[in-house]
Amino acid sequence: MPLSDSITKALAAIVGADALLVDAADCWPYGYDNSRRQSLPAAVAFVTNAAQVQAVVQLAQQQGLPVTARGLGTGTTGATVPERNGIVIAFERMNRILRIDPANRLAVVEPGVINDNLQRVLGEHGFFWPPDPTSAAVCTIGGNLAYNSAGPKAVKYGTPRENTLSLAAVTGSGQLIRTGVLTTKGVVGYDLTRLIIGSEGTLALVTEATLKLTPIADAKQTLRATYRDIHAAADAVAAIMAQPITPRALEFMDAAAIEMVRQFSDLGVSAETGALLMIEVDGPEQCVSSIADTVAAAARNPGLLELSVAREREQIAALWRTRKALSPALRHVAPKKINEDVVVPVSRIAPFIDGLERLAREHRIRIVNFGHAGNGNIHVNLLVNPDDTDEMARAALCLDGVFELVIALGGTLSGEHGVGLEKRDFVAREIDPPALALMRAIKAQFDPNGILNPGKGLPLQADN
Amino acid sequence: MPLSDSITKALAAIVGADALLVDAADCWPYGYDNSRRQSLPAAVAFVTNAAQVQAVVQLAQQQGLPVTARGLGTGTTGATVPERNGIVIAFERMNRILRIDPANRLAVVEPGVINDNLQRVLGEHGFFWPPDPTSAAVCTIGGNLAYNSAGPKAVKYGTPRENTLSLAAVTGSGQLIRTGVLTTKGVVGYDLTRLIIGSEGTLALVTEATLKLTPIADAKQTLRATYRDIHAAADAVAAIMAQPITPRALEFMDAAAIEMVRQFSDLGVSAETGALLMIEVDGPEQCVSSIADTVAAAARNPGLLELSVAREREQIAALWRTRKALSPALRHVAPKKINEDVVVPVSRIAPFIDGLERLAREHRIRIVNFGHAGNGNIHVNLLVNPDDTDEMARAALCLDGVFELVIALGGTLSGEHGVGLEKRDFVAREIDPPALALMRAIKAQFDPNGILNPGKGLPLQADN
Repeated sequence: MPLSDSITKALAAIVGADALLVDAADCWPYGYDNSRRQSLPAAVAFVTNAAQVQAVVQLAQQQGLPVTARGLGTGTTGATVPERNGIVIAFERMNRILRIDPANRLAVVEPGVINDNLQRVLGEHGFFWPPDPTSAAVCTIGGNLAYNSAGPKAVKYGTPRENTLSLAAVTGSGQLIRTGVLTTKGVVGYDLTRLIIGSEGTLALVTEATLKLTPIADAKQTLRATYRDIHAAADAVAAIMAQPITPRALEFMDAAAIEMVRQFSDLGVSAETGALLMIEVDGPEQCVSSIADTVAAAARNPGLLELSVAREREQIAALWRTRKALSPALRHVAPKKINEDVVVPVSRIAPFIDGLERLAREHRIRIVNFGHAGNGNIHVNLLVNPDDTDEMARAALCLDGVFELVIALGGTLSGEHGVGLEKRDFVAREIDPPALALMRAIKAQFDPNGILNPGKGLPLQADN
Repeated sequence: MPLSDSITKALAAIVGADALLVDAADCWPYGYDNSRRQSLPAAVAFVTNAAQVQAVVQLAQQQGLPVTARGLGTGTTGATVPERNGIVIAFERMNRILRIDPANRLAVVEPGVINDNLQRVLGEHGFFWPPDPTSAAVCTIGGNLAYNSAGPKAVKYGTPRENTLSLAAVTGSGQLIRTGVLTTKGVVGYDLTRLIIGSEGTLALVTEATLKLTPIADAKQTLRATYRDIHAAADAVAAIMAQPITPRALEFMDAAAIEMVRQFSDLGVSAETGALLMIEVDGPEQCVSSIADTVAAAARNPGLLELSVAREREQIAALWRTRKALSPALRHVAPKKINEDVVVPVSRIAPFIDGLERLAREHRIRIVNFGHAGNGNIHVNLLVNPDDTDEMARAALCLDGVFELVIALGGTLSGEHGVGLEKRDFVAREIDPPALALMRAIKAQFDPNGILNPGKGLPLQADN
């Protein structure tokens, strides 16, 4: 339903006429994300400061209109799809880096800053912000905070929840709050910072974030280890995680993923390769080689086929080409694959992959797995053709089995993509009823009228 | 007011008669903590499992009785003092280490486990849990979680909020909930784990915690650097924190602290020493010396007087003797000192110490400072005699000035001791009204009848 003239005028008065879209044709591109779901917002408001966010939320509250926050729409779960229409608050123009403070290891940023842009500027100061999703070149810090998105470096350096000190945010009742502290310790009041991180714009809209920075290590080295089968690779992962040096990346590809890449590019791995690990270590220049050797020793076991250590920049780039060839190959084979990002305890990666193979056979679905092995965060890709309704029905059953398996192994349904629309129907399998009831009760305190991204993140109830 | 016979009987039925105290003389020792405040509970129930905790809370809820959780009473803020009487739930007998899982880097423990006992057992597996308050030998994991207590290693390894994966806890409405995940990534539902950590038993009582473990580094070395004045030492702290190697401890003592230790033991530092840093680094055996050298280079500046590196166990112990001599010296001079644990941004340590010297002169209070410089977490000790009412009045004004200064410098009132009773009147200086209102609203969801540790952690309101 289009907005009334008076609401449109009020919105234009807040953000400016050149920062407001109301025509359906203009609004459509702000109604989808990487989940390929789409829904038409009634208006898109390009905010540039906290006062505007507050004013738009207050207006929406008065009018009972849903508000959906949007970074650059790289999310994969539909969390930014304005399912119930209403107003999309687009943060892409609210993208200033406000302060970089190396002595205090912090940066203050607006939510629309693109991850890679921040990393580039931080790099000039010798720092980085650990979360680095694959979409870093096109995703925003606000989005990273909304989903607690991490990426490969999380195994050593943590997720946004471990790397954010303080937030400014506008709640669903239109109040601007400050959470957290500017220091790495602080225990006054309850931790609202981490509560808002990962809440997918359902509790409050972040207008400013104070990020905890990490100094860039002097040097890094990359190892590639190939194994006869997933069990040998999983043993290596457990052995690496049980010794004192934590790698800065510990990525894996299963046999199906290797086979797929092999069809499109020369991997340089032997035909019998059943699993592959990419391992990256970092540290002081003078000891990074010995650090790499220590991790290599942990990676060796009877199932190891080949282990290469790349110490120079070009060698490192060559090794990562394997891992990077995967996404184009996947897109080629199944442009509309279902990509899940479940997590299992590291010690259960092997039984999990075994179980996935069983499910793939049972439901006749091709499944390709890769991901962040050091966190047990596995990207499970169901290669399906959405036009094949029979295959899609089997995929739905298969996915159900995947989630069941994850929970049975003590895992979680999402490591870094979040819940959004895609997984809300499965949340109750993981979270028990009293905890879920508390989450709903907390949501009602932040957003009494239920206008912030309604229906996302938690299971639907009869009354929504 | 003593409990009625029927309540006493009901409590005995839950925990057993040998696990219940109701006589005032027996209850007194469970009515105080290290704040030297004291209040008599009506009963002390020694629980041993979650079902008992749940049953006691449900009974308390029916009867409208306050419930105060207690580890071993080492807190310094009165958070475990049962100000409004009621039932103390003592967790000291609920102290089993349930599981240690090195492959998944986690341990599952009951809240009454003593920190040092856990560390000893973890050490046999090559791991540790980073939080290590000075009271580690006598404090419980449940208490560490209640206050988000950290200690020196937090500068490199974080606080309980960064080192806890999952909790089981009983809310104020008597429901047992599970929060978080068993993995290092997970973003399904809101983060209740971190919300409960640091909430001082006001939201829920932890009955089980799944802790994230860190592997023990092969080797460590200790450096001691002395400086002409606090400015030179603060410059060194900033330089150390701006380079890539994060020390595992970065502790400091100001001139007054050094002078005090000097009266009781031979420090082996020159008379002109105005500030001292204790720095510890860890890493692989083969590179820990070069790591120490890199940090030593960052610690050097024109104000440096002397820098010693201890590479052997006995040398390391000798250096730490300086730091460890401090507490006995302080106890000797002012057995009833006021010990605050404020935090300021690292770059503001020097202006903060300058400001403290000004306040000390102005209010004629002797102040001694030391603490965790890498986090900006300064233990500010006001050396007072509680029997001197005039001095205590000046100390109250001085403390007010300390808190004002901390907030003005962008800091926080507590780094690891929490709020309890001691700081509740100051919380509103740090947290803005809408955030405070949200915290109260969240409290009301977890604990609708307000029975869990009433009056602690947040400012009192007219109706409590």
